Amino acid sequence: MPDHHVVVVGGGFGGIELIHKLKGAPVRVTLIDRRNHHLFQPLLYQVATTLLATSEIAWPIRHLFRDRREVTTLLAEVNGVDSKAKTISLRNGQAIEYDTLVLATGATHAYFGHDEWEPVAPGLKTLEDATTIRRRALLAFEQAELEQDPAAREALLTFAIVGAGPTGVELAGIIAELAHETLPREFRRIDTHAARVMLIEAGPRILPGFVEDLSAYARDALKKLGVEVVTGAPVTSCTAEGVTIGDSFLPCRTIVWAAGVQASPAARWLEAPADRAGRVIVEKDLSAPGNPDVFVIGDTAAVQTLDGKPVPGIAPAAKQQGAHVAKIIRARLSGKTSPGPFRYRHQGSLATIGNREAIIDFGWIKLRGATAWWIWGLAHIYFLIGTRWRLAVAWSWLWIFLSRQHSARLITQKETMRDEAASERERTNVKA
Amino acid sequence: MPDHHVVVVGGGFGGIELIHKLKGAPVRVTLIDRRNHHLFQPLLYQVATTLLATSEIAWPIRHLFRDRREVTTLLAEVNGVDSKAKTISLRNGQAIEYDTLVLATGATHAYFGHDEWEPVAPGLKTLEDATTIRRRALLAFEQAELEQDPAAREALLTFAIVGAGPTGVELAGIIAELAHETLPREFRRIDTHAARVMLIEAGPRILPGFVEDLSAYARDALKKLGVEVVTGAPVTSCTAEGVTIGDSFLPCRTIVWAAGVQASPAARWLEAPADRAGRVIVEKDLSAPGNPDVFVIGDTAAVQTLDGKPVPGIAPAAKQQGAHVAKIIRARLSGKTSPGPFRYRHQGSLATIGNREAIIDFGWIKLRGATAWWIWGLAHIYFLIGTRWRLAVAWSWLWIFLSRQHSARLITQKETMRDEAASERERTNVKA
Repeated sequence: MPDHHVVVVGGGFGGIELIHKLKGAPVRVTLIDRRNHHLFQPLLYQVATTLLATSEIAWPIRHLFRDRREVTTLLAEVNGVDSKAKTISLRNGQAIEYDTLVLATGATHAYFGHDEWEPVAPGLKTLEDATTIRRRALLAFEQAELEQDPAAREALLTFAIVGAGPTGVELAGIIAELAHETLPREFRRIDTHAARVMLIEAGPRILPGFVEDLSAYARDALKKLGVEVVTGAPVTSCTAEGVTIGDSFLPCRTIVWAAGVQASPAARWLEAPADRAGRVIVEKDLSAPGNPDVFVIGDTAAVQTLDGKPVPGIAPAAKQQGAHVAKIIRARLSGKTSPGPFRYRHQGSLATIGNREAIIDFGWIKLRGATAWWIWGLAHIYFLIGTRWRLAVAWSWLWIFLSRQHSARLITQKETMRDEAASERERTNVKA
Repeated sequence: MPDHHVVVVGGGFGGIELIHKLKGAPVRVTLIDRRNHHLFQPLLYQVATTLLATSEIAWPIRHLFRDRREVTTLLAEVNGVDSKAKTISLRNGQAIEYDTLVLATGATHAYFGHDEWEPVAPGLKTLEDATTIRRRALLAFEQAELEQDPAAREALLTFAIVGAGPTGVELAGIIAELAHETLPREFRRIDTHAARVMLIEAGPRILPGFVEDLSAYARDALKKLGVEVVTGAPVTSCTAEGVTIGDSFLPCRTIVWAAGVQASPAARWLEAPADRAGRVIVEKDLSAPGNPDVFVIGDTAAVQTLDGKPVPGIAPAAKQQGAHVAKIIRARLSGKTSPGPFRYRHQGSLATIGNREAIIDFGWIKLRGATAWWIWGLAHIYFLIGTRWRLAVAWSWLWIFLSRQHSARLITQKETMRDEAASERERTNVKA
């Protein structure tokens, strides 16, 4: 085994790409993640909204590297870095030495100082988050079918999505389709057509990352699906009874938070400068300030393009950063000149609206409607890992397309306070 | 809507079949279940052992009856029956009137007076049970990869399955395959070939429901897969450290309970006579003693064949009972003579050993080995509900067959005491 030990923390898009790009390099690699699976986060909203099953968008990390003898995968939680001793510490008390360390630990949702909203307004970052949102949305319809008080029934049939970035838009579109197309035939006492899906955005328009006419198109497409879009509407409170927008109260029993993210605690581990979202402000080559052997990539890093714009927190950006760090490591070990600063190449922005339309901005061309949806779908199937899953997801989507029936509709785990307590604990761990 | 109201509690094989067989009868039906899904329990062990995903063997109950306008599905928990007033009560305080009541509420696992064993030795009845067992088994390998103490590592790599009926045999076979075939290439510090899978049976032989030579064949087949079979070995204690067999202690960190069942509390609701496992001792027509308008079917009922043998607690028996009660209800409403006592027709006994062999006893012919496995597999795909799932399961099995890789290997929900506390609470509800 080679001597040079690369430790990678986090098996998301950045960490996985880095290790793929180190194939054949004279290094041994240890990949540490506190979950056993790599998650295809761009499709997580489809699990939350009953289109896909959890198993279709996540793969055991160690399975991905089964043929790379020099890669060891550990399921463990990192809780500190000693950059002088060049070790990281695990929660179970063990320490692991590194020659090069790559922190790719991602981000979680943020409530702008209102962490008390999380139990009633879960965000969407993990498989558990997705099953929680799915369970709550499906339970709301179930409870409405039982409920005899009209006001309570109306609150049960009102769904509020806070934040109109791509995730918020995608959640709202599919929940509306679920209520208005999949479920009506199955309920006898309520009319699920009456369900209200509200998309609430503090800023002046939805999808602010897109040009104005695509954003306006998306708004119209959502309207056609029956989503009520409210912009310029800051949420000032979330409770179990509903959400307050500005100073008007909307009774609703299901709230989903898609309004902000907070980086994992890598900055604290490194005692490095961070931006407002907790991301490490890295050097131009993605190394931590004053720590040339430590790199920070993906949602944990605040990176700028060469002309000073922030690099977006999306999968292609994380992958490009992973590939760049792999190039630097190879150059250093072979004594070649460093590849220099990281250059981000934006390949395009995509968002789907319901299950038949999308908007895509490739820069040189802008697409909308059904064509865009097909391109989006094929691209995502292509980026899934492995034939087995590509076919499974293609089959699920084909079925939904033909039957208009969402099939991933299991309610598992009882909805009790313990779920909230646990998610609270987990969140505290991330931010502590 | 017709006047006669049939209330069915429980959406398992018995309840679902009953409602299918009532199609076109002059009744309205309310089906109540505390879960939103019908579970294909014969394949539940495949979820627990990483062969299938949860979504492949469970379907939303209300989806099954979406085209039957006279069937209302409610997600609710029943907590009592007033057979004089002819109402059932729900946990949320509502009461529902019935003309005919069918209790098909199933069974849960039983620990022969040692309920304190449940947190360390989960049984296999629900999707959550299956994901708990899967999580524990996979976490044991993960923790062994991190563990530095050899004795602790050995305990982590020892798996005890208590009870050698079909479920115990099926679990043991697949866990052995997982350890010896799927996982070895993925671990670097441990050799998963070294994992021990123990199948522990108090009685003199495994699969006591089968004839002796099939049972002996299964034992040999398990041995070839690397399972250690111990018979005549009563378990006297289960703890987080291991299992005590007779008076010898086996250190092991994963225990699965497949040794006994306990019926749901229908007997208590009806104040009816029950057998030792809590099953209602029903009349020959499956009605509750002294309650001709109340029927009890499936695992909740103690039923005998015409020659006095107990009817087994398997899916075909529950379905036949559901069909029989539907016939009685139709006969009563049309003023025809009653179909008389329930007659059980045993169609065969099946068990799989690992993922390539099975034993089948059809009575008139006995099969073993690969042929039996193919028949078993085709039969189970046939009995799944809907083309969408038949193809999904067939695809998963084909993939495993070709690649020898189990793919449903996600660890979700953190393993904490809250899981145990919750499963304990749930259990108490069932038995209370």
